[in-house]
Amino acid sequence: MNDEAVDRPRLTPKGARTRARIVEAAAALIHARGVASTTLEEVKVAAEVSGSQMYHYFPDKNELLQAVIDYQADTIVKHNRRALGSPKGVEAWRKMVVAGVGSTQGKGGCALGSLGGQLAESDPEARALIAAGFDQWAAALSDGLRSLRAEGRLRYDIDPDDLATTLLATLQGGLLLAQVQRSTRPFETAVDTLLALAIGLEPSQEPTG
Amino acid sequence: MNDEAVDRPRLTPKGARTRARIVEAAAALIHARGVASTTLEEVKVAAEVSGSQMYHYFPDKNELLQAVIDYQADTIVKHNRRALGSPKGVEAWRKMVVAGVGSTQGKGGCALGSLGGQLAESDPEARALIAAGFDQWAAALSDGLRSLRAEGRLRYDIDPDDLATTLLATLQGGLLLAQVQRSTRPFETAVDTLLALAIGLEPSQEPTG
Repeated sequence: MNDEAVDRPRLTPKGARTRARIVEAAAALIHARGVASTTLEEVKVAAEVSGSQMYHYFPDKNELLQAVIDYQADTIVKHNRRALGSPKGVEAWRKMVVAGVGSTQGKGGCALGSLGGQLAESDPEARALIAAGFDQWAAALSDGLRSLRAEGRLRYDIDPDDLATTLLATLQGGLLLAQVQRSTRPFETAVDTLLALAIGLEPSQEPTG
Repeated sequence: MNDEAVDRPRLTPKGARTRARIVEAAAALIHARGVASTTLEEVKVAAEVSGSQMYHYFPDKNELLQAVIDYQADTIVKHNRRALGSPKGVEAWRKMVVAGVGSTQGKGGCALGSLGGQLAESDPEARALIAAGFDQWAAALSDGLRSLRAEGRLRYDIDPDDLATTLLATLQGGLLLAQVQRSTRPFETAVDTLLALAIGLEPSQEPTG
């Protein structure tokens, strides 16, 4: 996602840390409150940087927003890469996504998907970046599903790419239901039902807790 | 959804038509542009009503927003009730939802779900109404799936309520992917993959076109 690093003058290590601090603060505020309710001033305070530092790294809110989208996509893809490559991996991945929703009771929705809902109709550049993030997320899931298939653990009549798209859609929709209902239940139901249908995961094989 | 009709003084037929015109105009504008970008003034112009008529039916934007949520939920539930009761019904329902997304290339997202993404964190009353709408939507889907099961057309190891929740999550997430990617493809893939896994729908039985 960080193609812009090529165009941009290279940052000193200290500069890179300052920039990262701004992006992380912005990502947290935007996830909690939404894009429209987050000001550059609030990000500046949360990141503990000066106004001139903010302006140096992010001359306007759009650039910051794009950095936040990249950051959220990178973070998610990192956690989903090679996650589904074995039945143990699937179980661990399921625990990870359910715990993620449980920690907030769905508040804020998906860190990447909720940006899509807010920006898709008003910011074409953001929309394209979010679409690219979803593509990478689906590709990461698909990689794992291919390994699972090679091990004979995935039904052979299912295309791993199609299942990855379906899993991503189910995650996104399940998160929206959880966000609106303030409960992890619909999210867990949707993810577990799809996994049971596609992979026939038997949780009893993997004692939990 | 229309519990408020009980509390509210009964409208004359003409009054009910005027109110409905305002709600439909607001629903269309909000779906196209989002809640934050739609003003009462624009709704007034689109509905061709006077300022005093607007104020009479909707003293503030929140009341109008609640009426729009009810309207979108009622419309959707009507189209999903008893929709999945037979293989033919499933095929027709699939065509309906895919055509719905295709007509806009996903623009605006789900008429109900997109309101959830916009309002869940800022408007608890709206959030609760949207959650109730999702519950009714899932119940409508579940009704159909129960009939399908009674006909032996649904795998017996699947709970119809769980599958309804999963289907709703897949619709919502598929719509978000379609909205962000400006393509119906991820939506169709997600819906078709889930239906194939759960129902084993064979489209070849139902010649299309």
